[in-house]
Amino acid sequence: MSNIKKINHVAIVVKDIEKSLEFWETALGLKLHHVEDVPSQASKVAFIPVGESEIELVQPTTEDSGLAGYLEKRGEGLHHLCVEVDDIEAKMQELKDAGVRLINDAPQVLPGRKMAFIHPKSASGVLVELYEITAE
Amino acid sequence: MSNIKKINHVAIVVKDIEKSLEFWETALGLKLHHVEDVPSQASKVAFIPVGESEIELVQPTTEDSGLAGYLEKRGEGLHHLCVEVDDIEAKMQELKDAGVRLINDAPQVLPGRKMAFIHPKSASGVLVELYEITAE
Repeated sequence: MSNIKKINHVAIVVKDIEKSLEFWETALGLKLHHVEDVPSQASKVAFIPVGESEIELVQPTTEDSGLAGYLEKRGEGLHHLCVEVDDIEAKMQELKDAGVRLINDAPQVLPGRKMAFIHPKSASGVLVELYEITAE
Repeated sequence: MSNIKKINHVAIVVKDIEKSLEFWETALGLKLHHVEDVPSQASKVAFIPVGESEIELVQPTTEDSGLAGYLEKRGEGLHHLCVEVDDIEAKMQELKDAGVRLINDAPQVLPGRKMAFIHPKSASGVLVELYEITAE
């Protein structure tokens, strides 16, 4: 069976990263690593390390994405939970065999990682992301 | 300044721990540590280690708690994010000084830990819990 290594990140959807950093960085005392534009996800993301994991603040950059719709409907808050696995294809197959509903049929391959989402209907209402870190 | 050590846990509110474990344990492959009744919080909690953190499945055990109301209104899903600090009183003072709204004026003291909550209005819509692990 493929192995789950850790929580890679917890993602929080926000209206305005700069404003949110007043809490997470200035008040709470975490250290921002960097902010990255992710045009493929119509968002920009602030990466904030916490122990072996990260908090990611995700701000929609267009008004018509799924994320922008989520923010409009539910407001700011926790968005998804990402667990890191050692073999994403094996884990996805195990989940399919167990009858779990996946959002992606195959992992998306990005520089440095492969990723896929599990549907909240199969995961106690939680949007769960799977990550496999790959050689860059 | 007090130090943040790691994500202690991510809490997920669920209707039925046994049913949710069919995903988190049986399908996803995490290992349940134990399930604990927490009458003071009107809930029972399944503790599931993931790396240095835990996923906690929290099931209300009464119908009139705040948690039961949250579940009724928003459904199952991510509930709060707990970060572990080395000095909770110092961190709470720093947050007050920064104008952050806390739910608890002083930490709740339980066996093995002190805890307090930050109001979601001050934290990008996220209910943030602070933990300090103390000698048992």
